[in-house]
Amino acid sequence: MKAQVLRAYDEKLTGDSWVSYEDVPDPKIVKSTDVIVRIGGAGVCRTDLHIIEGIWKPHMDPTGRRLLPMIMGHENAGWIEEIGKEVEGLKVGDPVIVHPKITGGTCLACRRGHDMHGDGTFPGLDCDGGYAEYLGTSQRNIVPLPRTLAPKDVAPYADAGLTAYRAVKKATRHLLPGERCVVIGAGGLGHIGIQCLRAMCAADIIVVDLSNASLELAKRSGADHLVKADGNEVEAVLALTDGKGAEAVIDFVGEKGTTAKGLAMTRPMGSYYVVGYGEDIRVPTVDLVISEKNIIGNLVGTWAELTELMALADRGLVELATVEYALADADQALKDLHHGKIHGRAVLIP
Amino acid sequence: MKAQVLRAYDEKLTGDSWVSYEDVPDPKIVKSTDVIVRIGGAGVCRTDLHIIEGIWKPHMDPTGRRLLPMIMGHENAGWIEEIGKEVEGLKVGDPVIVHPKITGGTCLACRRGHDMHGDGTFPGLDCDGGYAEYLGTSQRNIVPLPRTLAPKDVAPYADAGLTAYRAVKKATRHLLPGERCVVIGAGGLGHIGIQCLRAMCAADIIVVDLSNASLELAKRSGADHLVKADGNEVEAVLALTDGKGAEAVIDFVGEKGTTAKGLAMTRPMGSYYVVGYGEDIRVPTVDLVISEKNIIGNLVGTWAELTELMALADRGLVELATVEYALADADQALKDLHHGKIHGRAVLIP
Amino acid sequence: MKAQVLRAYDEKLTGDSWVSYEDVPDPKIVKSTDVIVRIGGAGVCRTDLHIIEGIWKPHMDPTGRRLLPMIMGHENAGWIEEIGKEVEGLKVGDPVIVHPKITGGTCLACRRGHDMHGDGTFPGLDCDGGYAEYLGTSQRNIVPLPRTLAPKDVAPYADAGLTAYRAVKKATRHLLPGERCVVIGAGGLGHIGIQCLRAMCAADIIVVDLSNASLELAKRSGADHLVKADGNEVEAVLALTDGKGAEAVIDFVGEKGTTAKGLAMTRPMGSYYVVGYGEDIRVPTVDLVISEKNIIGNLVGTWAELTELMALADRGLVELATVEYALADADQALKDLHHGKIHGRAVLIP
Amino acid sequence: MKAQVLRAYDEKLTGDSWVSYEDVPDPKIVKSTDVIVRIGGAGVCRTDLHIIEGIWKPHMDPTGRRLLPMIMGHENAGWIEEIGKEVEGLKVGDPVIVHPKITGGTCLACRRGHDMHGDGTFPGLDCDGGYAEYLGTSQRNIVPLPRTLAPKDVAPYADAGLTAYRAVKKATRHLLPGERCVVIGAGGLGHIGIQCLRAMCAADIIVVDLSNASLELAKRSGADHLVKADGNEVEAVLALTDGKGAEAVIDFVGEKGTTAKGLAMTRPMGSYYVVGYGEDIRVPTVDLVISEKNIIGNLVGTWAELTELMALADRGLVELATVEYALADADQALKDLHHGKIHGRAVLIP
Repeated sequence: MKAQVLRAYDEKLTGDSWVSYEDVPDPKIVKSTDVIVRIGGAGVCRTDLHIIEGIWKPHMDPTGRRLLPMIMGHENAGWIEEIGKEVEGLKVGDPVIVHPKITGGTCLACRRGHDMHGDGTFPGLDCDGGYAEYLGTSQRNIVPLPRTLAPKDVAPYADAGLTAYRAVKKATRHLLPGERCVVIGAGGLGHIGIQCLRAMCAADIIVVDLSNASLELAKRSGADHLVKADGNEVEAVLALTDGKGAEAVIDFVGEKGTTAKGLAMTRPMGSYYVVGYGEDIRVPTVDLVISEKNIIGNLVGTWAELTELMALADRGLVELATVEYALADADQALKDLHHGKIHGRAVLIP
Repeated sequence: MKAQVLRAYDEKLTGDSWVSYEDVPDPKIVKSTDVIVRIGGAGVCRTDLHIIEGIWKPHMDPTGRRLLPMIMGHENAGWIEEIGKEVEGLKVGDPVIVHPKITGGTCLACRRGHDMHGDGTFPGLDCDGGYAEYLGTSQRNIVPLPRTLAPKDVAPYADAGLTAYRAVKKATRHLLPGERCVVIGAGGLGHIGIQCLRAMCAADIIVVDLSNASLELAKRSGADHLVKADGNEVEAVLALTDGKGAEAVIDFVGEKGTTAKGLAMTRPMGSYYVVGYGEDIRVPTVDLVISEKNIIGNLVGTWAELTELMALADRGLVELATVEYALADADQALKDLHHGKIHGRAVLIP
Repeated sequence: MKAQVLRAYDEKLTGDSWVSYEDVPDPKIVKSTDVIVRIGGAGVCRTDLHIIEGIWKPHMDPTGRRLLPMIMGHENAGWIEEIGKEVEGLKVGDPVIVHPKITGGTCLACRRGHDMHGDGTFPGLDCDGGYAEYLGTSQRNIVPLPRTLAPKDVAPYADAGLTAYRAVKKATRHLLPGERCVVIGAGGLGHIGIQCLRAMCAADIIVVDLSNASLELAKRSGADHLVKADGNEVEAVLALTDGKGAEAVIDFVGEKGTTAKGLAMTRPMGSYYVVGYGEDIRVPTVDLVISEKNIIGNLVGTWAELTELMALADRGLVELATVEYALADADQALKDLHHGKIHGRAVLIP
Repeated sequence: MKAQVLRAYDEKLTGDSWVSYEDVPDPKIVKSTDVIVRIGGAGVCRTDLHIIEGIWKPHMDPTGRRLLPMIMGHENAGWIEEIGKEVEGLKVGDPVIVHPKITGGTCLACRRGHDMHGDGTFPGLDCDGGYAEYLGTSQRNIVPLPRTLAPKDVAPYADAGLTAYRAVKKATRHLLPGERCVVIGAGGLGHIGIQCLRAMCAADIIVVDLSNASLELAKRSGADHLVKADGNEVEAVLALTDGKGAEAVIDFVGEKGTTAKGLAMTRPMGSYYVVGYGEDIRVPTVDLVISEKNIIGNLVGTWAELTELMALADRGLVELATVEYALADADQALKDLHHGKIHGRAVLIP
């Protein structure tokens, strides 16, 4: 089959071509619960840029095993192409979205439903992913799609959407009417997060972003208040929250100073949710004590949460702005993303 | 001042006149935190009919103390008329809604925020209420109204709305996208409950009612599915919930067989919320064990929850259909309610 | 192999012999994740008597499929005898306890960790169980035992212990110091429940039972207060709980009037946990509303919860009083249980 | 009356005398709910040293108001001496412990039970405290003591104990059998925290401290594992937690590198609780994302929580090691604390 293969890291992202379009062997059924998916769409994600830079290598392969060459792509959707002989409830041709973490399902984390914390592999990060015609995965990763949803339109939900959903879900478990949620960054994840917030709670939604285009997308996504990140965004948020900040702040950026600002926008007893990553958080312990604030880490989401997100999409409560590229043009999609030319999410179509 | 006084119970509700329009002494400030409210509107509630029938007497006065004569009215809103000398943060003329339970604020229940479980009195049930020109209450009962809300338009939120809100809030703490909530009864409480559900979670809302008019009100309030209570309502709900029932069932009726049906509509691991009351619940223990269902009691709500509900109303996320009557016509309002002639909630205007 | 087979129901439990000791075929590995366990001990449970009576038939087989003949036994522990070819992390000879519900692990309930609510079978209830030399089960059912625990000493934890643990765990999530938990019934489940309460929270434990022997067992298990069920047990509990009842009441009996009494012992805002079953619960809706009490169903427990219970046992925080019988003497064990001659739990040893 | 007054900050703690023993006017009843307490004991706390250093000034008085001279002492217990004319349920002579934050009780934080987040004053930090014969406070601050507890023996629970309790309580809401809790620092707060953990959950308790004496105190308080903070404490904790860390880490130190080490000891999905303060937390966002860890701030506790802690003390589940000093010797007590000579907590006796 055809696939886009990462052959070498490019630390500064200065190379002409980052991935290589090649003929590679098709994935094969090995275990009785394996599943092969014909790719309908593969999302292109900022994490892919970090992978190319080599940032994720130490996390994905602490023992120094050789990861490359590797087919990229961790946001995948398509149709069932082949199933192992003990797979039940799925049949060839079913449209599906693929939860990104492949786990055995037997460890305590998996048994409690925390799939992404189970031992396993993550196609596109530490084994072959979905920038390809076919993807090898497992029965446990398959979420069937309702008829309203086409694979290419939903692929980015598999990771970007799921990550935004999980952080928002945690916040909505405590957000009450009259309370406020700040969303920092109304980009690929943020605009999904805003829609999830709108659907799942009655809190006021305040969106902070550098770009007018993103703030407009935020407004269409359901934001109540827009705050331009012009250097006075903390004061602007405090002015909207009786001087004390918001009960929840969800930071989809996590760099260029948003962590200190996000914490400053968080109300006493409130929670600051870390989703985007880049810089270090630095905060005096005494500040956390006096204000009793929480800093909450967030990692993708569970299989069950992917079904919840698909339920939102099925009902039209979240919609995704996508830009389609041919699989052959993966390099172009990645470069456009790198240069800020993509509004919404890019999807590769084989 | 003028007031509508209950002088004697009428067990069968067959008397010509249930309440008596009289001149009575004005309420007075006694404690330094007392507050007198000039009534702008007093809601007329089905519980008022039960009070007239004498049903509440044993609950409100277990020691046999004489409760009558008593001014009725437990859903009150208006303007601050006078304040005790240690009241802070309130001033004469402020528009307010009045939390119905007067408590000292020092017992453990109050200190944990569960105001309606504190020791105290409940105007209109065990002491003089708001079917009058003025109401005596306490600083702890006052929720200031935002400028968008007029007292006469919100009075029924003080009890009916708050009760619906609290039950719905409990359900929304566990309802997830793709899950379902059945609402039994789309009357005065139910139509508020449906709007709160719509605002606070993304679950599918299935409304069951006997009346087409109520089902239409349910639809306008945000219901996704309408089920006529024609004797096959359990089957109809199961058909909408893959044969297993809904994760939450909120019963605003609680009589004429809704409890057995409501439990039958509840999914394994789901919760059946009792709000309306009348009949007994009867359920085999083995059924609760095999299905691991929960039956959840609900009682009014806290002061903080009344502020949350006002936040919803302020944002236009809940609206109340009211019918106005002059205070002098309280008997007419009660009879119209008794005969099913009121759609929405009646409010008495002094 | 040898096994104890139920060949016919005995509705009144009047027959001479209830189970039949026979040579039957050994269980076989069919699926790649199947596991065969050599039985070290099989617990004898009151549910076994109900199965013999035929009470469970409509629940376990709503479609009228023929369930008998069936090997009984749903509380099993032993050693791994054989594993399917894709089983990982287990090896022949490992000591294990067996979670009773066999599920595929792919439905939403399983994926959220609620194993006992997944679709599947329950050996000893609707397919062959562990009153035998060997038991066929699945990788997902296996909980490895720490070296401190021998299979025959822990088998009853697989169902009785797990059921007690789960109900107690729910209560300990809300019980705070200074609050109280009533345990009704200090028998096989109850004495495990009391120990779990003691280990997992600081609430005062009040135990109600008919029998002095059971109350003594309760005391050894960690009860703070003992109440003889002499007809005045509600008053006795109210006297111990400032007249208002306990924040949690866990009913391990569920018959002969304990449900009404248990609810009467429950404090406003408290929860009544149904574990034992037999009679109907009957409660006026108005009582649940005024008191805002909850009635909570309980069903076995999850795989993860069985690991939690084994952690308690490993640390000596729960201990089980067992009485051993040879597998050949299953009938005797069942009859002794039926006639109240067993204190603690009977275990069959092949 | 006699009191110990702070007249000037001493940034380096180099002065001969930090507080001044003086005759000052007695506190007076002003509001109808005021209460005057005759001090039985006043705890001496590390925060007192920070107050003398001036560290708390910007937090307690952001507007630059003059705070000094001020009577110190925020951990107070004694007997009711005088009550305002609307105080109910308390009488002169009752033994009591005093919640440290004086609030009006009407703001949303107070009404939800989060007393320490309400607007108000904090005797000993921003107004006159309990290093004195009498203390002025309010009805809302009074927790009556059971007969088992003498004021001088419990005074340090009012702040130090309450702070430890609240952090531990948060952890016990999620800690399950088989899970682990690391306690960093077994000093004044830590040894209370360990006892609360022991009483309220079944998690394994791992205590990390620099000092052998403190580790011995930890052992007596209920620790399961002791880890000397010799530079390899992270590795030692990982070795005790299958290489992944503990589900909860409660840091009573918060300086000298414990924050980075504490986070390193925290398991994925686990929570790191900040109680002690001093240094900055510095953590890469990507680490919080990959591990999905939480950082939880903690501030004193609520009035209800102080009653919960007193319930633990009443039952002998927590005990406090105290060292008594005469009120006149406050300077000596503070210096002994500063020089690490106090094991347990110092209490001043008027």
